[in-house]
Amino acid sequence: MHPLSPLSADEIAAASALVRSLWPAGTDLQFKVIMLEEPEKSDVLPYLDAEHAQQSLPKIDRRAWVNYYIRNTSKFHEAIINLSRQTIERHVRLGLNQHGNGDAEEIVAVEQAALKDESVLAEVAKLKIPEGSVLVIDPWIYGSDGVNDDNRMYQCFIYMRDPMNPQEADSNHYALPLPISPAVSTEGFKVVRIDILPTGADNTIKPLEEYSIKPPNEYLPEYQKLRSDLMPLHISQPLGASFWVTRQGTSTVIQWQKWSFRVGFNQREGPVLYDVRYDERPLFYRLSLSDMSIPYADPRHPYHKKQAFDLGDAGAGLMTNNLKLGCDCLGMIQYLDGVITSDKGDPTPMENVICIHEQDNGIGWKHTNFRTGRAALVRNRELVLQSIITVANYEYIMAFMFNQAGELNYEVRATGILSTQPIDDGVDVDFGTRVHPGVLAVHHQHIFSLRVDPMLDGPANRLVYEEAHAMPRSDFNPHGIGYTTKETVVERAAGLDLDPDANRIFKIQNAGVRNPVNGKPVAYKIHAPPFQKILADKDSFHFRRAEFADHNVYVVPYKPHQLFAAGQYTNQSRGGTGVRAWASGQEPVVDTDIVLFVQFGINHVPRIEDFPVMPVEILKLAMKPVNFFDRNPALDVPPSEQSFNKSSLASEAHKQPSQEAEVGEGGAVCCSSTSKL
Amino acid sequence: MHPLSPLSADEIAAASALVRSLWPAGTDLQFKVIMLEEPEKSDVLPYLDAEHAQQSLPKIDRRAWVNYYIRNTSKFHEAIINLSRQTIERHVRLGLNQHGNGDAEEIVAVEQAALKDESVLAEVAKLKIPEGSVLVIDPWIYGSDGVNDDNRMYQCFIYMRDPMNPQEADSNHYALPLPISPAVSTEGFKVVRIDILPTGADNTIKPLEEYSIKPPNEYLPEYQKLRSDLMPLHISQPLGASFWVTRQGTSTVIQWQKWSFRVGFNQREGPVLYDVRYDERPLFYRLSLSDMSIPYADPRHPYHKKQAFDLGDAGAGLMTNNLKLGCDCLGMIQYLDGVITSDKGDPTPMENVICIHEQDNGIGWKHTNFRTGRAALVRNRELVLQSIITVANYEYIMAFMFNQAGELNYEVRATGILSTQPIDDGVDVDFGTRVHPGVLAVHHQHIFSLRVDPMLDGPANRLVYEEAHAMPRSDFNPHGIGYTTKETVVERAAGLDLDPDANRIFKIQNAGVRNPVNGKPVAYKIHAPPFQKILADKDSFHFRRAEFADHNVYVVPYKPHQLFAAGQYTNQSRGGTGVRAWASGQEPVVDTDIVLFVQFGINHVPRIEDFPVMPVEILKLAMKPVNFFDRNPALDVPPSEQSFNKSSLASEAHKQPSQEAEVGEGGAVCCSSTSKL
Repeated sequence: MHPLSPLSADEIAAASALVRSLWPAGTDLQFKVIMLEEPEKSDVLPYLDAEHAQQSLPKIDRRAWVNYYIRNTSKFHEAIINLSRQTIERHVRLGLNQHGNGDAEEIVAVEQAALKDESVLAEVAKLKIPEGSVLVIDPWIYGSDGVNDDNRMYQCFIYMRDPMNPQEADSNHYALPLPISPAVSTEGFKVVRIDILPTGADNTIKPLEEYSIKPPNEYLPEYQKLRSDLMPLHISQPLGASFWVTRQGTSTVIQWQKWSFRVGFNQREGPVLYDVRYDERPLFYRLSLSDMSIPYADPRHPYHKKQAFDLGDAGAGLMTNNLKLGCDCLGMIQYLDGVITSDKGDPTPMENVICIHEQDNGIGWKHTNFRTGRAALVRNRELVLQSIITVANYEYIMAFMFNQAGELNYEVRATGILSTQPIDDGVDVDFGTRVHPGVLAVHHQHIFSLRVDPMLDGPANRLVYEEAHAMPRSDFNPHGIGYTTKETVVERAAGLDLDPDANRIFKIQNAGVRNPVNGKPVAYKIHAPPFQKILADKDSFHFRRAEFADHNVYVVPYKPHQLFAAGQYTNQSRGGTGVRAWASGQEPVVDTDIVLFVQFGINHVPRIEDFPVMPVEILKLAMKPVNFFDRNPALDVPPSEQSFNKSSLASEAHKQPSQEAEVGEGGAVCCSSTSKL
Repeated sequence: MHPLSPLSADEIAAASALVRSLWPAGTDLQFKVIMLEEPEKSDVLPYLDAEHAQQSLPKIDRRAWVNYYIRNTSKFHEAIINLSRQTIERHVRLGLNQHGNGDAEEIVAVEQAALKDESVLAEVAKLKIPEGSVLVIDPWIYGSDGVNDDNRMYQCFIYMRDPMNPQEADSNHYALPLPISPAVSTEGFKVVRIDILPTGADNTIKPLEEYSIKPPNEYLPEYQKLRSDLMPLHISQPLGASFWVTRQGTSTVIQWQKWSFRVGFNQREGPVLYDVRYDERPLFYRLSLSDMSIPYADPRHPYHKKQAFDLGDAGAGLMTNNLKLGCDCLGMIQYLDGVITSDKGDPTPMENVICIHEQDNGIGWKHTNFRTGRAALVRNRELVLQSIITVANYEYIMAFMFNQAGELNYEVRATGILSTQPIDDGVDVDFGTRVHPGVLAVHHQHIFSLRVDPMLDGPANRLVYEEAHAMPRSDFNPHGIGYTTKETVVERAAGLDLDPDANRIFKIQNAGVRNPVNGKPVAYKIHAPPFQKILADKDSFHFRRAEFADHNVYVVPYKPHQLFAAGQYTNQSRGGTGVRAWASGQEPVVDTDIVLFVQFGINHVPRIEDFPVMPVEILKLAMKPVNFFDRNPALDVPPSEQSFNKSSLASEAHKQPSQEAEVGEGGAVCCSSTSKL
């Protein structure tokens, strides 16, 4: 087992068995997390050196991180198990305001508890919805407001299926939201409170009355008149893919176009990349999505608590989709699997959680000598590692993308269904958009934090930012057109911001390694688009909990267990345990082992076009070499040629025999006419 | 002929003949521009209405816009020719500081004049470069500094080919820049001044001495050790493409996935889209790249004048590449041709100036019902119209991209070779980067202006901007988490800026057409990334000439002949004739026929990785519907299915018989091992 490989199924079973052995037989434990406790970096770095030098490898103990409850209680525990020595290295019961994540088993139990509750049903009865209607509940992580919320609860939002078609299990219930919201405790799964929701422009709670049934708004294809004029587009690699896949136990090494890296997968973060190198030069020790925060804009009870931390509150690994060939992925695909724990402590295999494929991303570089007419051109092949998570109503499609110019991109596509709530006819509010009759989609921010643990040509790195400024007029600049760049070294742990007006660019540098041509420190720059930081005020729980959401970049010295930007336990958290707290010590961060948390996001002001399922909103972050190589690293990509690319002319397509038509309803085949002058 | 169709070859010939007939026989005219003089919009709109209603079409006269010189003089003329009536509607000789664009014939003549000039050769001799060396000259548009620059000139930068390999016509001469720069007048093509270039850190001009020959830095594939492990990736459409191509004379109507638009092509802008509609609803009357400005940061003579306006100073159509199947374009491709004028007034056909193809851009939308496990997913098919221009050293790849969710993107990829200059060994400057021994690449900005002439559901449109702001604490917002959006109407012509901290978003609205569900005005929003505006100071010629470069968006009322953001004549211009001037009248722009100029760009601080050819830097602008439709317009895209997409497993690829290996030098075939847990 490689020290960075995720826990195997056997290791998960061994860890839960060891934890169970600490308790009297028959104690019912509810496991929340069993994942790799990564070894000390100081142990791993010599291991990686030996591995890449093909020398004999040091032995490193395997450890598991475990969180569990005594079932139906609030007794929440954290343990570290040494699997190699079969010992318990840490085992504590956690205190107030430290709660475990939600998971599928629990969400189903909460939904059932609320749907069976007599007082909930009594409230629903006041709505006089048609007999035979089917209710559906989205249990939301409770959130924090400091009002009687020390215990672990869910806040439930109730919807109904189209009453004319109640047997449709995949009916879009978000088109029919009801104004009743029970809160359910996880101690015994009991309804502890029923909130009636405000449905007007203010915070008035009106007595429940007959629910006005609006038309459905289904997203399933069988409810649409589908387009019939989309022709198939096939991507094939007749000689196979260009990447090499090497399995080592539960982790996988991918080699592609001078890149190499190890892929792990865990319950919290989903995919994790380790030991990312280009042409054997180390770039990143570890890369993963650290957390995300989605605060909502409606200030009214109980909506004021809506703030999801999808990784900390549930887990990106836990919610990862099983990907399907030809559906989620197009072209020649390699899938990777994962394994997490069930609530019983049993290993739960997760198939096809990551897909890997190559894609053509247009032209990579081109130059034509206008004197001779000779063009030199290469295409921009990319390697993509994609995973998708479903967070109840919403989907995120996440991808690491590598290219042949030494660039690494991270992309998030936001899609899925807006979390909706009821609104009275004719009412408009300035914190949301009516996306369907009776349906309000409230503004919300998506703020993501990517954890970047660099090791550019070694672990001693620094963060600098470069700005461009106009030169003052002088004898040197008599025409007022000159400008210069200057670099500022970030001396101490801090949260830092972009400034597009100064062209401020953050760079990770190794000041000890200089470019052989121009003598500049080798570096990678980070291009993350500016975004509006968290709008909730500094005294609010939203702000205090989303510890990364107030700055574009945080830099801190590396420390074990500082993986998750909003802290280890985000469910009903209070703040103070994440990256803002870590940075507050202002420790030195120059030429040492640093870690960055890079934020990006959008303020999602819903459009009606985002309903019933929203078209992807694409966010992209790029990391690019700056004076790291000695010339364009994609210069050695073979030229783009027809003998290799096998393109075809659309104008000749209509001469081809029509093949099996499989498109939409009509199956009509377009033809293109030639169009020469 | 459709009124918006570019001039045909016959029309170009007729226009030049008519102009020639104005002069005594034998007068040598140098034609600069012969392109469509677009009819009054008030005439075209009824025509388009009739066309879409399939009614009888009004007759609209065809006109040509002509610019020409009396050859070898500064006598520059502007004419409008009515081709239908064979009359001259306008014919004027232009005054001081109005100059025509450069073109290929002229650049070659300037290069030859400088290379033959005895005084230039005398200066070059001082460099003692090896016998048999070959000099290459990049004639630059002269620029403006107000110092004896009323006459039309070129500023020439001299380079040499690798002296060890001087017969290589495609040697990268930018790796060997010489410190001599002749200025050449276009009146008689004479050298009028020889500038010796500063090569140190300050503006000292040192006496010329023996040139220190550095190693070459070639970009051609035969000079590289090419990668041998890239496998082919083929994109095919066995049933043909999904778009329809209808030729009407010199313009082409494209229909694809509910989109329709007319494509034109001219010498100045390259591709122009007209009458862009979705599902027959009008969106844009006209879309084109209006101009770009590239000011450089080096304040020293003569570099202080480096500021290219590639469209105005030369012409995007003029410089457009002839695209090749399988090289510039991958997949099933439709090419369009264009025709411009030669300097003699003869039509010059330009083949394959635009390529059109479909591409898969990942997932379009997805939702999985976690209760049933059923996923609904469509892919994001895009239609791409691409063209590429070569501006001496540099390349721009421009594309309009349409998707199935009603979104229109405009993308620019910057690539090609940095414009370089000599620098002494060991010298560093803060306005440039040494990208090769002896070679300085100076910082520069690329600022683009996209002209957007909207007609959202009709010509009466307005520009608004939306911002998001925190709610103050109150009884309504007791927890401090609420926030709202508000819209501001732009009342008068103005330059306006983004503000990411306020999430400021610009939207084009038709306030007279309301969304049937939520009553909001139909709109399209514009997502252009923030960028650093022009750094040259407000009194500089750079600033005065780049009239669009100081604001993210300009809005003005529509007026004929306001197509080009920096004015009609940018070559050695003085400013005052572009969009900043047009907006200064502060005319009302609410619910009328408005035009936007949307700016985007980068401050290019060169990296060594950008040499000898830079990897594409991708800039993207998006226009997306906001409450324009009544739900996600891509909801009717057929679901993504393997029967349609024909994907394959990489893990099965090694079982396939190896086909013809055509990859790089080695031709090695990778295999992928299966990787199930």
